[in-house]
Amino acid sequence: MGYDAIDYLPYDFANRRHIGPSPAEMADMLTTVGVSKLDELISQTVPESIRQDKPLDFGKALSERELLYHMRETASQNEVLTSLIGMGYHGTVTPPAIQRNIFENPAWYTAYTPYQPEISQGRLEALLNYQTMVSDLTGLEIANASLLDEATACAEAMTMAQRVAKSKAKAFFVDENCHPQNISVMKTRAQPLGIEIIIGDVADLDPEAVFGAIFQYPGTYGHLRDFTDDIARLHEAKAIAIMSADPMALCLLKEPGAMGADIAVGSTQRFGIPLGYGGPHAAYMATKDEYKRAMPGRIVGISIDSHGNKAYRLALQTREQHIRREKATSNVCTAQALLAVMAGFYAVFHGPKGLRAIAQRIHRKTVRLAKGLEAAGFKVEPKAYFDTITVDVGLLQRGVLQAAVREGLNLRAVGKTKIGITLDEKSRPATIEAVWRAFGLLKNDDDLTPEYRLPEALIRTSEYLQHDVFHMNRAETEMMRYMRRLADRDLALDRAMIPLGSCTMKLNSAAEMMPVSWREFADIHPYVPDDQVRGYHNLIADLNAKLCTITGYDAISMQPNSGAQGEYAGLLSIAGYHRANGQGHRNICLIPVNAHGTNPASAQMVGWKVVPVKCDENGSIDLDDFRAKAEQHSENLAGTMITYPSTHGVFEGTVKDVCAITHEHGGQVYIDGANMNAMVGLSRPGDLGGDVSHLNLHKTFCIPHGGGGPGMGPIGVKAHLIPHLPGHPVSGEGAVSAAPFGSPSLLPISWAYCLMMGGEGLTQATRVAILNANYIATRLEGAFDVLYRGEKGRVAHECILDVRPFEKSAGVTVEDIAKRLIDAGFHAPTMSWPVAGTLMVEPTESETKAELDRFCDAMLAIREEIRAIEAGDMDREVNPLKLAPHTMEDLVRDWDRPYSREQGCFPPGAFRVDKYWPPVNRVDNAYGDRHLVCTCPPMEDYAEAAE
Amino acid sequence: MGYDAIDYLPYDFANRRHIGPSPAEMADMLTTVGVSKLDELISQTVPESIRQDKPLDFGKALSERELLYHMRETASQNEVLTSLIGMGYHGTVTPPAIQRNIFENPAWYTAYTPYQPEISQGRLEALLNYQTMVSDLTGLEIANASLLDEATACAEAMTMAQRVAKSKAKAFFVDENCHPQNISVMKTRAQPLGIEIIIGDVADLDPEAVFGAIFQYPGTYGHLRDFTDDIARLHEAKAIAIMSADPMALCLLKEPGAMGADIAVGSTQRFGIPLGYGGPHAAYMATKDEYKRAMPGRIVGISIDSHGNKAYRLALQTREQHIRREKATSNVCTAQALLAVMAGFYAVFHGPKGLRAIAQRIHRKTVRLAKGLEAAGFKVEPKAYFDTITVDVGLLQRGVLQAAVREGLNLRAVGKTKIGITLDEKSRPATIEAVWRAFGLLKNDDDLTPEYRLPEALIRTSEYLQHDVFHMNRAETEMMRYMRRLADRDLALDRAMIPLGSCTMKLNSAAEMMPVSWREFADIHPYVPDDQVRGYHNLIADLNAKLCTITGYDAISMQPNSGAQGEYAGLLSIAGYHRANGQGHRNICLIPVNAHGTNPASAQMVGWKVVPVKCDENGSIDLDDFRAKAEQHSENLAGTMITYPSTHGVFEGTVKDVCAITHEHGGQVYIDGANMNAMVGLSRPGDLGGDVSHLNLHKTFCIPHGGGGPGMGPIGVKAHLIPHLPGHPVSGEGAVSAAPFGSPSLLPISWAYCLMMGGEGLTQATRVAILNANYIATRLEGAFDVLYRGEKGRVAHECILDVRPFEKSAGVTVEDIAKRLIDAGFHAPTMSWPVAGTLMVEPTESETKAELDRFCDAMLAIREEIRAIEAGDMDREVNPLKLAPHTMEDLVRDWDRPYSREQGCFPPGAFRVDKYWPPVNRVDNAYGDRHLVCTCPPMEDYAEAAE
Repeated sequence: MGYDAIDYLPYDFANRRHIGPSPAEMADMLTTVGVSKLDELISQTVPESIRQDKPLDFGKALSERELLYHMRETASQNEVLTSLIGMGYHGTVTPPAIQRNIFENPAWYTAYTPYQPEISQGRLEALLNYQTMVSDLTGLEIANASLLDEATACAEAMTMAQRVAKSKAKAFFVDENCHPQNISVMKTRAQPLGIEIIIGDVADLDPEAVFGAIFQYPGTYGHLRDFTDDIARLHEAKAIAIMSADPMALCLLKEPGAMGADIAVGSTQRFGIPLGYGGPHAAYMATKDEYKRAMPGRIVGISIDSHGNKAYRLALQTREQHIRREKATSNVCTAQALLAVMAGFYAVFHGPKGLRAIAQRIHRKTVRLAKGLEAAGFKVEPKAYFDTITVDVGLLQRGVLQAAVREGLNLRAVGKTKIGITLDEKSRPATIEAVWRAFGLLKNDDDLTPEYRLPEALIRTSEYLQHDVFHMNRAETEMMRYMRRLADRDLALDRAMIPLGSCTMKLNSAAEMMPVSWREFADIHPYVPDDQVRGYHNLIADLNAKLCTITGYDAISMQPNSGAQGEYAGLLSIAGYHRANGQGHRNICLIPVNAHGTNPASAQMVGWKVVPVKCDENGSIDLDDFRAKAEQHSENLAGTMITYPSTHGVFEGTVKDVCAITHEHGGQVYIDGANMNAMVGLSRPGDLGGDVSHLNLHKTFCIPHGGGGPGMGPIGVKAHLIPHLPGHPVSGEGAVSAAPFGSPSLLPISWAYCLMMGGEGLTQATRVAILNANYIATRLEGAFDVLYRGEKGRVAHECILDVRPFEKSAGVTVEDIAKRLIDAGFHAPTMSWPVAGTLMVEPTESETKAELDRFCDAMLAIREEIRAIEAGDMDREVNPLKLAPHTMEDLVRDWDRPYSREQGCFPPGAFRVDKYWPPVNRVDNAYGDRHLVCTCPPMEDYAEAAE
Repeated sequence: MGYDAIDYLPYDFANRRHIGPSPAEMADMLTTVGVSKLDELISQTVPESIRQDKPLDFGKALSERELLYHMRETASQNEVLTSLIGMGYHGTVTPPAIQRNIFENPAWYTAYTPYQPEISQGRLEALLNYQTMVSDLTGLEIANASLLDEATACAEAMTMAQRVAKSKAKAFFVDENCHPQNISVMKTRAQPLGIEIIIGDVADLDPEAVFGAIFQYPGTYGHLRDFTDDIARLHEAKAIAIMSADPMALCLLKEPGAMGADIAVGSTQRFGIPLGYGGPHAAYMATKDEYKRAMPGRIVGISIDSHGNKAYRLALQTREQHIRREKATSNVCTAQALLAVMAGFYAVFHGPKGLRAIAQRIHRKTVRLAKGLEAAGFKVEPKAYFDTITVDVGLLQRGVLQAAVREGLNLRAVGKTKIGITLDEKSRPATIEAVWRAFGLLKNDDDLTPEYRLPEALIRTSEYLQHDVFHMNRAETEMMRYMRRLADRDLALDRAMIPLGSCTMKLNSAAEMMPVSWREFADIHPYVPDDQVRGYHNLIADLNAKLCTITGYDAISMQPNSGAQGEYAGLLSIAGYHRANGQGHRNICLIPVNAHGTNPASAQMVGWKVVPVKCDENGSIDLDDFRAKAEQHSENLAGTMITYPSTHGVFEGTVKDVCAITHEHGGQVYIDGANMNAMVGLSRPGDLGGDVSHLNLHKTFCIPHGGGGPGMGPIGVKAHLIPHLPGHPVSGEGAVSAAPFGSPSLLPISWAYCLMMGGEGLTQATRVAILNANYIATRLEGAFDVLYRGEKGRVAHECILDVRPFEKSAGVTVEDIAKRLIDAGFHAPTMSWPVAGTLMVEPTESETKAELDRFCDAMLAIREEIRAIEAGDMDREVNPLKLAPHTMEDLVRDWDRPYSREQGCFPPGAFRVDKYWPPVNRVDNAYGDRHLVCTCPPMEDYAEAAE
């Protein structure tokens, strides 16, 4: 006691909070692994040839408190004005109960994508509510569980239209009333695919000339048009009609389905999702039943479990991660699950009556605003509108905009002489009066007589949100309990390790998460003037600098709002570079066969041809094959896409050779950053020869997975690619996302992580991630074969366990093991990727030795159960593996199994008191795909399920 | 569709969020109850004679968003400076994971007091951690689960000392170095009890003259003294030694137990609990094993369940709520459970090494601060200190204080010439430099050489926090999961109705809760200058005005920080009034036998004699008996304490008579406000004849129960009592709590409630609370007898179900029913109060019809089970009632019961998928009291439990 503790740092975030194993645990683990020091293991794992020159140094790491203070200072450099800019982004009221119980609740935000349906029933139900809402509001049969943003949804709809249209035309018509960022992103997407974009007045649309068309509803300047006739004409020409529609407007207006639209897209941001300077928000897509298999993104559907009970799961999954590599036309992977859940709950909270009332209030206020301006002689367009008007003020434009800012308002500059104004559910009489003052009018908004200026023909006549969930008692008590019940059905990081290979499910600390809720980050429109977002810009600049230091690149673009978007944006920058060098013909992309499924899909999105490269028996790139292919395609080699360390979990010593060969043949190197958690502080992709990489901030840099999104996939590039980075979605060229910085409200998380870890802490995290993986590999030795190892017998930050032999020896599949792990209270590792029939385990640095041991104990016990089958002591069909997962229902039922209830439900690893029970038994995916239901089931089904 | 919804108010908090039954549900319920309109029911329930004249009118109710905007404006009127005032209140760093996962998590804050241990194992474990921490740090064998604040803890310790001391002396010695608010509250407490307070220098203590003494450690001006010899002298004189000690200092300094102290008290605020302008915080009390039965407050202990497994529960409960009425000497009831949980987790987070390091850092910084002042020639006292120094600046005092404010610092004015400075874990070099600047010194805090000025003899030599829980891996991942596991073991309002009679467990809405976390409310010292807390003062003034309007009183004191404190403060004001009128001899208090247990205890605390008044068979006050007693004691009648509506759940028509009779005989009327939820907007205690009432803001006004605290018990008084309200604890007289406004950081909750409900909404809440209670009473008719009803057969906002007959008919006790309700997923109603062997049910207005029906279904099914026993179809001992609650363990075990697993575990009312499972079977209270263990058990026990 006494004065002995001066070297103990109680606020050391890296070592006391973020990194799982304590020093004592680490010492034990090193012994198990068979090395004396962590350095020794790292030397055995990470080849000297690829190590970076000098350690990361970001100065002194901040404690949680210092971080929050610093973050507060940064936040205060943002100025929060009321933005009436519109363009698809609106002020909205997040119900506090949703904010507290979902947005700020780790049970929701630390969950993974619901690939394992048995442990995801809660968020699957919430997403089904969302899909039902979208389907109802749009009047289309089937909706997906969200896309990244409205602009990318438009681009996805365009390419989907191309896939399904019977028209052979090559052009695509874009309504000139589309939001500019939508047009911008569609243009970017169209170019490499050879799609000609025709922008124009809908009246001038020539259906024969196009395979599809997209209309904005309401138009970006407020116009409302009934597209029924236009759509009919398109259909006659066998072309596809897309509407990008505001879901709030759809609460009052004739829906896309009623006009005959084939596809509807849009943003659900204004359903309670904070502006966040551009994101994350959930974009929606809905389509007719006949096109459902062409729809990108995840779709939640209903199936049954092994007892025949209703169970939710992702439908038509084969379309997605497991996309047929050479046929992919979309690389959509991440959704905006957390935000879709929130938007769905917003609808549950308000119900159809509430939504309609909100929409009407917005509209009536817009009418009052317009009347005030008209009375003063201003020229207001259009005559009928929902929430947006445009006012021609001639030379006064700049003056009005500046006056508005002084009134605390951001208005939209339209052309050189007009002002756009869009009201929202936050608009109050004081808002209207402030707008008037900006126009020089001093008057009160006191004539509250309701008045409507919606075209009679466009008044919605159909009902929506008729399902019971939108008519439940909306008392907060009931809502809170419903949210809690759904949360409890799921297994997320707040209860157990999620050892998903390639997904890096690490701690999302409370200190990192808190600032996301602050209004200075949350309540900012993406297109505000730069001088209102100095805090954001300073944050982004510093984070960019740190990421450059970490990766060895020269610049970062924050625009891509998912990993796959990052790949796409990175490849676009390479393509742009080639074009600028007169090498636009280069269109061959070498991709090793173990690449992420999104890699080939992204390559095809930029119009490249994918040439697969073999891997050797260790899972490493076959250098001879690679060289041969590079030489063969030398003339046309656009680039190489590799993942480092490889998706097989190995640091390949030949990586620099691969890069050098690519460069020799005029190609550029894309290094997929999904495995960056194995490199930070140890090795830099930019040093290895990479020209561009994306970083999954939602993997390595602590943004939570949110149950399947949001994500952020910024790209780092070498200097020569900087001119080819995505431009501003409104004012620039080559945008890939709707907002200039993707989903910037998430960036405080990654920045906080870097600041609290410091360079040393970040490096230690990498080292411990490698230790944790090797500890698992060592503990499971003899029970499971690790499929790939590095030269010195080590794995990187993850390892692939080969469970294929058990199918023959015991009839046990990888799925059986995954489901059995649920009984032990674990989310399964990544199944059958990158090698079919295997499990890929990635523990991350955040897991403690105790949790790793719990996982290993569970795995070893599973191996013993397999042995019992192998030995004939247990039946090949009736055993705890085949019947996993076990539910509480199993316990209540008669038990006629050859193993005990105890053995079935409490295998080693399972908590006793705190046991997680999946709400359903094993889900039948095939049944669900045969009987596709992707909206809330009718009441009778509920009645049955209740019985 | 179309323009039909203009009358629908989507943001109407009262009707859409707070009040449970929807209009359609209410219509159904009225039919069941047998009235056509709610008005009709209210007329049948609330006598016309007591109805208030005019409806409540607080103007337009605010929506959640408007409320938060208004609250933000109010918050911004507070100025957050760094307070180095000390006096037991310190800057502290709440670990963000604790803030997010406990402080802001409804699973923790909506829980009730853990009287039902089977559904409270999580928070009981957390409180046991807290007790262990207190016991270890103080070096005393047993600690309670928290008291209201340090000052009241001192007063409790004083009266406890009087109870246990063998000395017959009547005086009590108070160290002049005690914090002034501690002295102030002890003085208030001592006066009516006839205890003479001797304040002086410890050196002058005459042990023979006192029954006990209290020492502050460290002293309020920073002094450190080894009290070992003083305590020995006290013990020789058979007097009791109390130390009020700072737990942070105890991490470095010799502990009270080692000095021989009998009782230690203090505040755990600086263990991560925000300052909150004075509270809520958890005060601790610890004592020697021999005095444990004299210790006030709740104590968590360890027992076993019916299967012999370890189970936590409240120990020695008979001492508390069920206090022997006439012998009570403390009315302590509410603890600060939520804050104690947080403080305990702070210790779990940091562990002994971390706490010691934090304490050392605080100390070293204080040394650096002092050295800088000394070097400049300032006279710094004392020579040895922990975190507090006092500097004599002569005439400069005011100048330095003002300069400090300009530097963003609050320092303490000590006497007329001195400045007190206390550093804390938030103090940084910049803080030290700012202090120096306030003293006119411009220099950098750059000599970081560690230096200590603790007296060698006082260096702590014993270990603390050796239990495993304080040595678990402190990675946030693990901590988050531990918090989640504990939360999941408990059943709180976020999962089910808690129909506790007299406790009003209503919605604590997210919008109401959010501002509590804001720094403008959270980070303010209780003794800052008034001009820094304009926001708080405006809030309090408006809330006071509203509460006056609601109650019919003329003024409110916010000082009492629990309901029982309110009673006590209210009676003190009456006593003061009598004294001021030369009627100081009045000391008789009439209390009906059905009063709250705290009523007689409070009366005795002000030195009154309790004279019980009979009730008639309807549970109403026997007016004849009352009149007779009042006449009999006319000369000495101090007052009458009644509860309205009565604790029997009935609006007595005679209430005005009772008040009038009391007044006739010179007494004052105290109306207990516990049942105010049945009156707001309908009837005002001030109009009925009450002179003073307390209001449980944690019942009627939406402050959550926090698992057993915090609470707030402000009192309303008529004008004549205003001069006798509690004064400021530092500068005034008659303080009852340490902080001028009790626990003011909770007040935004109640204010938000009033603002969002509006007068009409508040009244409707009352009406629906009455409807909900009558609905239950009606639905259970025929199955259970409702013990008391009003004249027209209605109950008020709660009803007492008579289950006594079943003990004879079926051997089923009230406890069996309570435990069986756990199987159905409910917290039991209030057991055996106010009538032994009954259940008192209070649904509140927040519960929906569906939840009420679920409860009624569960109760009716229980009645059927009882009938089966009565009919002989079920055994009297082996049946689902006697064996309740059922656990998952029961399901896994062999099942040899005469009823099925299904029947045992899923009675009507129980959720299927979302079933709540208690972690233990029925807890054996007697066993626990026989084998009292109130700190974390040794490791072997854990090992056993794990097996």
